[in-house]
Amino acid sequence: MLLVSMRDARAAEVRAVEALLRSHAEVAARVPDGAGVTLLARSSNGELAPVAERIGRMPGVARVARIDSRYVLSAREAAPGRTAVRVDEGLEVGGREFVVIAGPCSVESGPQMRATARAVAGAGARALRGGAFKPRTSPFSFQGLGEEGLAILADVRRETGLAVVSELLGPRSLEAVDATVDVIQVGMRNALNYSLLKELGRLPSRRPVLLKCGIGTSLDEFLCAADYVLAGGNPNVILCLRGTVGFSQESRCALNLVDIPALRARTHLPIVVDPSHAAGRWEFVPAVAASALVAGADGLLVEVHHDPAAALSDADQSLKPSRFHRMMHRLSLLAPVLGRTIADLTTPVCDPEGHPMGDLCLEAPTAGLQPSCVAAATTAREACHGE
Amino acid sequence: MLLVSMRDARAAEVRAVEALLRSHAEVAARVPDGAGVTLLARSSNGELAPVAERIGRMPGVARVARIDSRYVLSAREAAPGRTAVRVDEGLEVGGREFVVIAGPCSVESGPQMRATARAVAGAGARALRGGAFKPRTSPFSFQGLGEEGLAILADVRRETGLAVVSELLGPRSLEAVDATVDVIQVGMRNALNYSLLKELGRLPSRRPVLLKCGIGTSLDEFLCAADYVLAGGNPNVILCLRGTVGFSQESRCALNLVDIPALRARTHLPIVVDPSHAAGRWEFVPAVAASALVAGADGLLVEVHHDPAAALSDADQSLKPSRFHRMMHRLSLLAPVLGRTIADLTTPVCDPEGHPMGDLCLEAPTAGLQPSCVAAATTAREACHGE
Amino acid sequence: MLLVSMRDARAAEVRAVEALLRSHAEVAARVPDGAGVTLLARSSNGELAPVAERIGRMPGVARVARIDSRYVLSAREAAPGRTAVRVDEGLEVGGREFVVIAGPCSVESGPQMRATARAVAGAGARALRGGAFKPRTSPFSFQGLGEEGLAILADVRRETGLAVVSELLGPRSLEAVDATVDVIQVGMRNALNYSLLKELGRLPSRRPVLLKCGIGTSLDEFLCAADYVLAGGNPNVILCLRGTVGFSQESRCALNLVDIPALRARTHLPIVVDPSHAAGRWEFVPAVAASALVAGADGLLVEVHHDPAAALSDADQSLKPSRFHRMMHRLSLLAPVLGRTIADLTTPVCDPEGHPMGDLCLEAPTAGLQPSCVAAATTAREACHGE
Amino acid sequence: MLLVSMRDARAAEVRAVEALLRSHAEVAARVPDGAGVTLLARSSNGELAPVAERIGRMPGVARVARIDSRYVLSAREAAPGRTAVRVDEGLEVGGREFVVIAGPCSVESGPQMRATARAVAGAGARALRGGAFKPRTSPFSFQGLGEEGLAILADVRRETGLAVVSELLGPRSLEAVDATVDVIQVGMRNALNYSLLKELGRLPSRRPVLLKCGIGTSLDEFLCAADYVLAGGNPNVILCLRGTVGFSQESRCALNLVDIPALRARTHLPIVVDPSHAAGRWEFVPAVAASALVAGADGLLVEVHHDPAAALSDADQSLKPSRFHRMMHRLSLLAPVLGRTIADLTTPVCDPEGHPMGDLCLEAPTAGLQPSCVAAATTAREACHGE
Repeated sequence: MLLVSMRDARAAEVRAVEALLRSHAEVAARVPDGAGVTLLARSSNGELAPVAERIGRMPGVARVARIDSRYVLSAREAAPGRTAVRVDEGLEVGGREFVVIAGPCSVESGPQMRATARAVAGAGARALRGGAFKPRTSPFSFQGLGEEGLAILADVRRETGLAVVSELLGPRSLEAVDATVDVIQVGMRNALNYSLLKELGRLPSRRPVLLKCGIGTSLDEFLCAADYVLAGGNPNVILCLRGTVGFSQESRCALNLVDIPALRARTHLPIVVDPSHAAGRWEFVPAVAASALVAGADGLLVEVHHDPAAALSDADQSLKPSRFHRMMHRLSLLAPVLGRTIADLTTPVCDPEGHPMGDLCLEAPTAGLQPSCVAAATTAREACHGE
Repeated sequence: MLLVSMRDARAAEVRAVEALLRSHAEVAARVPDGAGVTLLARSSNGELAPVAERIGRMPGVARVARIDSRYVLSAREAAPGRTAVRVDEGLEVGGREFVVIAGPCSVESGPQMRATARAVAGAGARALRGGAFKPRTSPFSFQGLGEEGLAILADVRRETGLAVVSELLGPRSLEAVDATVDVIQVGMRNALNYSLLKELGRLPSRRPVLLKCGIGTSLDEFLCAADYVLAGGNPNVILCLRGTVGFSQESRCALNLVDIPALRARTHLPIVVDPSHAAGRWEFVPAVAASALVAGADGLLVEVHHDPAAALSDADQSLKPSRFHRMMHRLSLLAPVLGRTIADLTTPVCDPEGHPMGDLCLEAPTAGLQPSCVAAATTAREACHGE
Repeated sequence: MLLVSMRDARAAEVRAVEALLRSHAEVAARVPDGAGVTLLARSSNGELAPVAERIGRMPGVARVARIDSRYVLSAREAAPGRTAVRVDEGLEVGGREFVVIAGPCSVESGPQMRATARAVAGAGARALRGGAFKPRTSPFSFQGLGEEGLAILADVRRETGLAVVSELLGPRSLEAVDATVDVIQVGMRNALNYSLLKELGRLPSRRPVLLKCGIGTSLDEFLCAADYVLAGGNPNVILCLRGTVGFSQESRCALNLVDIPALRARTHLPIVVDPSHAAGRWEFVPAVAASALVAGADGLLVEVHHDPAAALSDADQSLKPSRFHRMMHRLSLLAPVLGRTIADLTTPVCDPEGHPMGDLCLEAPTAGLQPSCVAAATTAREACHGE
Repeated sequence: MLLVSMRDARAAEVRAVEALLRSHAEVAARVPDGAGVTLLARSSNGELAPVAERIGRMPGVARVARIDSRYVLSAREAAPGRTAVRVDEGLEVGGREFVVIAGPCSVESGPQMRATARAVAGAGARALRGGAFKPRTSPFSFQGLGEEGLAILADVRRETGLAVVSELLGPRSLEAVDATVDVIQVGMRNALNYSLLKELGRLPSRRPVLLKCGIGTSLDEFLCAADYVLAGGNPNVILCLRGTVGFSQESRCALNLVDIPALRARTHLPIVVDPSHAAGRWEFVPAVAASALVAGADGLLVEVHHDPAAALSDADQSLKPSRFHRMMHRLSLLAPVLGRTIADLTTPVCDPEGHPMGDLCLEAPTAGLQPSCVAAATTAREACHGE
């Protein structure tokens, strides 16, 4: 496929490029986005190199690329570098900041959301997650508060200023969800629901879409699914890995560690990891989260509940606020080594329980690591404990 | 199962404990190890709590534990803390040091092994890997140099002082391998070869065994396999994760990230990770290696070849020495944050190509991370580049 | 969960049962279906046995069952025997007849559908499959003829009298699909699209739904998905197995043979198997089809194309009409041994190429089976070849 | 790889072929077998077609084939048709007869083995399985009777005339096992134990080897493993599928139905299926067994225990003799349709409980199939019940 990206081009310039393309190939798509238009053409005889070169010199053309994968618009070759998706004023996913989105599985009540929002924001989370419409395995389980849940999200968003991420289950609630949230989540059950993805691609708001990888979806299919949104003209797609079916009996899903750098090598889109659904048990969430940071992810989607034992869903995999806080503290010590920031580094994330040095270390469930963290961590720690 | 660990006990003390055990339970095993003996008993009626308490107060008894898993000796409850396996003078796996074992897939020649040994030792590796006997999928592929390969390993070991790790394929070569290497590797194809594991358990040398997890082996079965070695009286087992069959089409195997903390929560034995076989492509090895460190592994087994293009096996997944060096440099920046050391921190691992700051960041295949690593990394870097 | 099925009950009888239920439990759902209503109640303290017994004696109650699985309405305990779903006059799936649904992956043109319909009907197929709306991995691949495809299906249905099965991708085309087809197919990508399943449950036509199992969906989740349709009041669900992600590199999917009897043991709903998507290669389709019959399936969904090389999708796994014909011939010899019928046994399915005896045997790709089929097959054969 | 099979060739003829081969290629192996020798050569430049043609005309050459897969000797192209492995006087696997090998998981006692042997032989089994050396997941589980178990097998073999199949765990017991059994089983844990496979290839007795496919072994690796035995000069390999790791939570393993015809398409070696380990539950064994027959397997390896509740291992998946008998009855009705025989068809396998017609049908766990099996089955039934 030949991709021609045009930026700030005049109508006549686009027409000229299209005319030349059509004389040598079949034009497969004309994708509008915020800043211009992208043309995709497919050759019948493979001799596109000469025409690609000519087009590259035409006015209004920002980028010409030949792409051999099944996915095109999400392919790494389709953009000059990594893409950052702007969520709201001052928040983008895919830039230098490692962005943590946290909150409960389900919106259960106003007080629950307010308490959680305050707790996660205080620990460095930049956006709040919470499902108003819940895809539950059984039709007889709690299905979410629906419209009432959206109203709660809208209130908490107004009060805290936190961006809000919530799941869309079908087109009937698209308008209401789009009007409320900052990022529309597409869950793993709908990862290949092309009908829904097409609607999100055509959304006039170009609302960012957080697309989860399906439990049986290959990276190739995953990026093709992203292409369904991009092809409609919505360039704001955030990819989310949350594990696939796998061999392990230890965890809810198998999160193949290699998928993180492998996906990063294939696409220009930002990647976040959901350690909660991967692990299925809160004990393992901090280790998975830190590994995701180190392996190249751009952020996390984490389940935090102010009272996991009382949660209406996903109780076993939700962190308590204090444990989330400690996890963020550790991530904020690792991030600088990788050239990443977390929240605002001038106010380092404190360990809320004032743990001594040893606890700064990432805690595997059985602890065991030595307490003497080295000087590299000192500055942040001192600001925290006033030592 | 009731486990009774006796240390520095007199024969009469052991007899007294055994007698009491037998009066209440079936004694399943009597496992000698370096410092004493461990008794395992199985109750017919489950009323072992009172006798456990009595035994706990008897002379010579170091530890009494009730263990409900299928694996017993490798279970976390079987030891008071994490176990470190001593490899040679000054080198143990499972302690504070994150131990990197590196080298080619196969021993191909003396010069190849000498060149690689020097290169990996210079970059902070503490032991050399290299197969003399190779388990190849096809009987018509190169099967390793055999005895000649062992002789090369012995020479290089003598010359460099590096500990040597090499694979054993069957009992016929057990004596020769045991006489040459510091750690005997059992590959994933023999992960459940109980006949071989029993022989390694009975080895008079108590040579450390690096046991790889099979491609279709659960953590439960893996720890049971370790028990086969431990039950023979050899307490020196190092576990190695290298990925299992999985859904991913991106990598040779699927290394479920959650398996690392989950295994650590179940066992007291040290855990190393093989990022080369997991990834199957050298580009992804550094990201997997760093994630393993962060997730709680005690070390790595990495393939490095001085000329991967000419390697007789595993060319695609072998790092060149310079890339290995750069990976070690990055690991040495991450390790202190986790309370770990790598090689000798007073001589930090240098980036051999003198890369500027930006390259200190862990490089996903498409790079892209910002160049401005923060002050946390400064000290190590200055020592390296003299800036 | 306590299930109370009421048939031909008066309103007052239903009210009486509901009142008694409510006094002892939480009523979770009230499911209408064609012939009555089913009430589902969940106890808070588990003491439902006495009330279940009382309810069992009340007028209008056809069945009371306690069901411990997550799925309820599709559970075997929810019906007195196996359920047959009526597709049209004279055709039901789940009865004694082994029902073969055949046709191309995509509706491509009127002539294509007419040619295929005639061919498959002549070989004993009882319904025609063909996608008007196609869920394609890439947004730039052929997406189906859409409304035009539905019109072609309607014409062919009228002309041939064959029932028609076609896929629904989203609610926007629900009305049009419902007005055209006899069975609405939900593909594996939408297997857990609960929003869509709920709409199908509420469909006034109670159009039969052929629900495919997702590639990463467990049997438990699959039956819960069926419950989403059933809970809306549409009792006409046909389950379809087509393989899941798996270890095999031989086939597009892994169709675990054990899933067929295991699913049959768990549900009263009819089960068909899609051998084409499981195998991914036409050579293996006949063996998979025959095995499905023997393992207990109620029918097949098979891809047949009159010119596979020219097919717009799924070319590799589509049978040519002549090979389909031969496969049906063989199935018609096996079915009687299992107490099943295929199409109309008084007109046995002929082998269109008049193959001698040997070819009556099921042909594995390399043939090899002996030519001397025994007398059991003689009658059918003679009617066919006039020997 | 170029394969040259020589039969009844004089030494000079072999030398002439070898000389010609060497002048154009690298000779990779010289494999003796019962009736001659097979030469394998690998070209450096791929121009083997002309020399292949010349060799094909040389005296003593029975077959020349170019083989592109990693496995060579087991490849379908390596033999003129399907290979039947002779087990003993009058019994071969891979011919027209569908051979059923049945018996308990473990040899537990003489009376147990005698009772089971009589029962399975009476129902049409042609060989007895039973493990003397057992590969158990835990070292503290029953490990088999060892030498004592072999002695029991030898006695029962002498008394009943049944061929005996038993597992080998390691080279230390090779001599004793070889001296006792008719077929040496290599279990799935040793599927890739190349050291052991090489020893079996060099066995002077050329004892048939029943090689199970590993739980994480691809068909490609499986056939390469068979090549390890064949390359040593032992041509008698029987392949056994028993399921692999997979997605299903319904069964112990996932037996991908497509693997049976796919394996048959790749190799000339006989294939048996182990329905007991695939299903993990006896209820599903008959359906899996019948499907294997229909899909193209050459036989079965089935677990039968005279008292499953008392079995020392694999209790859940062992059939009682009466259920085994009924399963054999049904298989004997299906086999003729496929051109296969089971045991001695002139004495059809009776249903021991004298079930009426309906029960002749293959019973899925919930039965449900109609009772009126058609005339196709009548002859066999009448001979059985004297109706």
